[in-house]
Amino acid sequence: MMNPLTSPLLTDLYQLTMLQGYIDHDMHGTSVFEFFVRIMPDNRNFLIAAGLETVLTFLEECRFSPEDLEFLSNTGRFSANLLDYLEQFRFSGDIHAMPEGTVFFPNEPIIRITAPLPEAQLIESRIINLLHYQSLIATKAARCTIAAAGRAGLIDFGLRRTHGAEAGLFAARSSYIAGFAGTSTVIAEPLYGIPIFGTMAHSFIEAQANEEEAFINFGISNPNNVTLLIDTYDTVRGAEKVVTAAAFLREKGITVRGVRLDSGNIADLSKRVRTILDDGGLRDVGIFVSGNMDEYTIRDLYEQAAPITGFGVGTRMDTSADVPYFDSAYKLTEYAGKPRLKKSEGKATLPGRKQVYRRFDHNTMAGDIMTIEGDSHEGRPLVRHYMERGERLAPALDLTDIREFTMQQIDGLPPYLRKLEKTSPYPVELSKALLDMKEEIEETLE
Amino acid sequence: MMNPLTSPLLTDLYQLTMLQGYIDHDMHGTSVFEFFVRIMPDNRNFLIAAGLETVLTFLEECRFSPEDLEFLSNTGRFSANLLDYLEQFRFSGDIHAMPEGTVFFPNEPIIRITAPLPEAQLIESRIINLLHYQSLIATKAARCTIAAAGRAGLIDFGLRRTHGAEAGLFAARSSYIAGFAGTSTVIAEPLYGIPIFGTMAHSFIEAQANEEEAFINFGISNPNNVTLLIDTYDTVRGAEKVVTAAAFLREKGITVRGVRLDSGNIADLSKRVRTILDDGGLRDVGIFVSGNMDEYTIRDLYEQAAPITGFGVGTRMDTSADVPYFDSAYKLTEYAGKPRLKKSEGKATLPGRKQVYRRFDHNTMAGDIMTIEGDSHEGRPLVRHYMERGERLAPALDLTDIREFTMQQIDGLPPYLRKLEKTSPYPVELSKALLDMKEEIEETLE
Repeated sequence: MMNPLTSPLLTDLYQLTMLQGYIDHDMHGTSVFEFFVRIMPDNRNFLIAAGLETVLTFLEECRFSPEDLEFLSNTGRFSANLLDYLEQFRFSGDIHAMPEGTVFFPNEPIIRITAPLPEAQLIESRIINLLHYQSLIATKAARCTIAAAGRAGLIDFGLRRTHGAEAGLFAARSSYIAGFAGTSTVIAEPLYGIPIFGTMAHSFIEAQANEEEAFINFGISNPNNVTLLIDTYDTVRGAEKVVTAAAFLREKGITVRGVRLDSGNIADLSKRVRTILDDGGLRDVGIFVSGNMDEYTIRDLYEQAAPITGFGVGTRMDTSADVPYFDSAYKLTEYAGKPRLKKSEGKATLPGRKQVYRRFDHNTMAGDIMTIEGDSHEGRPLVRHYMERGERLAPALDLTDIREFTMQQIDGLPPYLRKLEKTSPYPVELSKALLDMKEEIEETLE
Repeated sequence: MMNPLTSPLLTDLYQLTMLQGYIDHDMHGTSVFEFFVRIMPDNRNFLIAAGLETVLTFLEECRFSPEDLEFLSNTGRFSANLLDYLEQFRFSGDIHAMPEGTVFFPNEPIIRITAPLPEAQLIESRIINLLHYQSLIATKAARCTIAAAGRAGLIDFGLRRTHGAEAGLFAARSSYIAGFAGTSTVIAEPLYGIPIFGTMAHSFIEAQANEEEAFINFGISNPNNVTLLIDTYDTVRGAEKVVTAAAFLREKGITVRGVRLDSGNIADLSKRVRTILDDGGLRDVGIFVSGNMDEYTIRDLYEQAAPITGFGVGTRMDTSADVPYFDSAYKLTEYAGKPRLKKSEGKATLPGRKQVYRRFDHNTMAGDIMTIEGDSHEGRPLVRHYMERGERLAPALDLTDIREFTMQQIDGLPPYLRKLEKTSPYPVELSKALLDMKEEIEETLE
């Protein structure tokens, strides 16, 4: 059985029909492709690049299996020269990219692929698929981190409504690098080393004789992880039962750590629950909330002074519900030594190999200039060299290091970009060298 | 390396902490869970159930590997009794469900799981993950099918911006059963037998000396599949070059089948292109369009009498951009012979094992009544028996049969539900037997 997570057949058919053309006409010249987002979506003031490590691993491991080749051969669509090429296929190109976790803006390339044309073409679909979703979620998660402002731990709770299995994994990973404490998705721990968290569902309560017995049974079975869900029948009464159950469990040496609210007027209920817990001597018991949480509800709840210590953020983050996709593109910018562009209405591209220089005011981002490679400007260059002739230039980064870098990036955002609503755009200038190149190419196309 | 597509660790941690409680307290009684959508989203008048076959396969194959068990043991979170249970785990329950492709409405169960409580609990996260996204996309795709009304072929083009690899596959499958002709995603053919389609990208044009040469080179390399992308520099001039290239290719016995437009004012350009092609003797060359297509743009283009013969529908369908998630749930409705419910504000559930009867007026859906199993009503019962004690009652259905059934379901929608904007709701009545049961349970909870 082919594995869609690793088979190069997870691609668009046109990549293969184009490759047939390239191979037939000996078009093996060096091509340069860049991946970027075309326009800043509504409700976004910055973007976070994510997924680079998964791209590098994909490129290292990308092979056509005998099964893949047999399928392609049996379609009758392709000639022997293409099938031979695919059998030998190894990615032999260079990768330049912004480090994972970098803040970026429209038209800035977060990855640049330099490789023989058929290679760079073949990998397009999966590279977009990997970078697009992970950047989408890292961006959304960073907004939640900003809204929480260190007042609460954030946990990814979204697996059940992510768009398939891989989205569940990537949501856990992308939210973790953007400041989440962890995820409820178990497999994210063995695969990525992400801390996992979990409590109980309503079914656990409903299946038992009564709520209090369910609380006690859960505590006895999970003595180091007692967070109790209290909204199954009536949240306020549920909190009262926690006080009784906690006293019972305390005698067995078991400490209740938190309660979870999942419905109703959370701002109001969290305050009432806080009072009940405090009056019952449970000042150290945290209040964890879930259900339709996102950066907007987190902000609103704190504006109402809700005494919340943790959020389970699920569906709305993991589907990036207010911005479920970026208008992103993977475009040819050079072939056989000559810069290239397309002029398609509303989708025109900038030619050449690009670099972005970012200026800082103390540690706060102050402005970017996008230019072509070799044209230096003030500031830090953002695009670095990661892979040379198909080989990584350094081992894979540790996820905690990527997380730390991402947190520094979020800290470097100027205050106006940290707003949740659309604000004035961050300045990204195009250099004279880049504009001159664009004009020159356009003239040759006339 | 664990495979997240098949490992039962693709689940929420709370399933395992709850299982520890169930096993410790010998709660192996028979439980009944149902999956349903809570409310009809804005911009939807009906929903299409999809993903049942993938759920049945998951349940047949669900096993903890030695690697999975070793990880769980090493976490130190779980007792030996739970690890022993998981090592032996096989799904031994019953599945009742609506056939894949069935039109359904809020609160109607599209699947019912009857199994010992720990089993039915453990599989919750992945079952939701499988059914939620596939139903989301089947619903969106059915709306595109309705908008096209047989005037054009629809192809799924969305892989690159789906949320990960599995979403790409499921989008191809769900859109195919809802009436699409096929997909651009290559691996969907060997895995599911879905027809694949593809043309060329702008990079193919840009990399060559000029557009006309690119058209000819492509035609020679793909003689049976010549659709030419004409908007790289100027769509109208591109169409003129197609006329020249087609004449050249015709002499070699190669027929141009279509052109593709991907940018600009599509309604206007498609008409101008049609005239150029017709005047050039290319009356049989179709016009295929892509770029931000969905049910709304398809409708709008036909309202403007655009002469379009095919649509590539991508990102907006494969992320279900206007409704990126359903408010769906998997809820306990019975345990140990006793119906169960939760009363959580805004998220209360209905108890018991449910059945839905659907009345028809000729072949058009006229109204549903939801009741409890054993209480018969007029109309066709929608929930059928698919798996008994862990074994399928019939072999997996052929995807083309599921597609045909789904198309019949779409044909059975009354005209008012076929509107793209929100309309008056379809009548779904709750039976007296169901309401009586609810009242009775609520009284016992007081």
